[in-house]
Amino acid sequence: MTGPRKPELAWQKRDLAEKPIKGEWVYRGKLLHVRRDDVRLPDGKTTEREYIEHPGAVMIIPVLDSGELVMERQYRYPLRRDMLELPAGKIDAGEPPLECAKRELLEETGYTASAWRFVTTIHPVIGYSSERIEIFLAQGLTLRGARPDDGENLEVFKLPLATALEWIREGRITDAKTVAGLFWAERILSGEWSV
Amino acid sequence: MTGPRKPELAWQKRDLAEKPIKGEWVYRGKLLHVRRDDVRLPDGKTTEREYIEHPGAVMIIPVLDSGELVMERQYRYPLRRDMLELPAGKIDAGEPPLECAKRELLEETGYTASAWRFVTTIHPVIGYSSERIEIFLAQGLTLRGARPDDGENLEVFKLPLATALEWIREGRITDAKTVAGLFWAERILSGEWSV
Repeated sequence: MTGPRKPELAWQKRDLAEKPIKGEWVYRGKLLHVRRDDVRLPDGKTTEREYIEHPGAVMIIPVLDSGELVMERQYRYPLRRDMLELPAGKIDAGEPPLECAKRELLEETGYTASAWRFVTTIHPVIGYSSERIEIFLAQGLTLRGARPDDGENLEVFKLPLATALEWIREGRITDAKTVAGLFWAERILSGEWSV
Repeated sequence: MTGPRKPELAWQKRDLAEKPIKGEWVYRGKLLHVRRDDVRLPDGKTTEREYIEHPGAVMIIPVLDSGELVMERQYRYPLRRDMLELPAGKIDAGEPPLECAKRELLEETGYTASAWRFVTTIHPVIGYSSERIEIFLAQGLTLRGARPDDGENLEVFKLPLATALEWIREGRITDAKTVAGLFWAERILSGEWSV
């Protein structure tokens, strides 16, 4: 970007960047890879940052021709409960996000889609993970038969967007990425926001 | 809850629960505490779950009498960039969430509020953390002077809700909890949803 800064960015003057001094892996598991870095703060002091290095993920907003969304109920062990979610999954090494989205939609729900649109990127855990989630809207869906990942025990269901939003209001849908995705879906499907 | 299940829950028949077999702490850092548990899946197979045990957090939607929101720019080392966020912070051991919200709002922004309302709970990282975030709406704000935590290098700014939503659309606000909170704020402040 060239030219003068936009007025609303006038407050973005101070450099808040934290500079890495040294770091190490403190845990390398099957799923989680945890780093601890010493960093220098803008005021010159040093502190420690612990965080998860994450390869990134995708989430899909699958919209049927009926207008209903394809969603999942999945048990989430860290919370010891099941959650209602939009389909999502981790990006494999070197995998383009859109390819990952197509793979995850088919693996988890059994659907393929003829029309794909990139929606936005969100960051779910800015305090302690490098994870980003690329969100895609999928339309023109065809059911090919579910092929769930090994160990992925989930149920697929259909839900009108209006009901999904009502379930956010009622506290029945609380997964942050799904909440963000459903509000985005409302803006896009109403034509208010284009992607 | 008693009585028959709601019709829309008819698909919630299968028990997807994963039962812990044994587990251990694999990393106990200053900030992050990582567990690895062996679990039994509903189909009888076993697998491993790695996740962060988190004490929970709060996020505040601070609304000035002018209608503007109080927000923060903060450097987030895991992403190596600064992020635009609603005020938030981790709950201390034994601390009631509302007390935490009052403490964090004052510490991070210098504001106190005369009217507090609980909005909802969201779960930001259902795949690998037990974290939940309790969201509160704060109104009747008075500036008392900022008292930032040590090592917390952030800038506070004011933003109209309409601009904040526009910044979501433009991809300038991507923190998932903030995105969810701003969409909730729109519903509440328009009177469409009551909390």
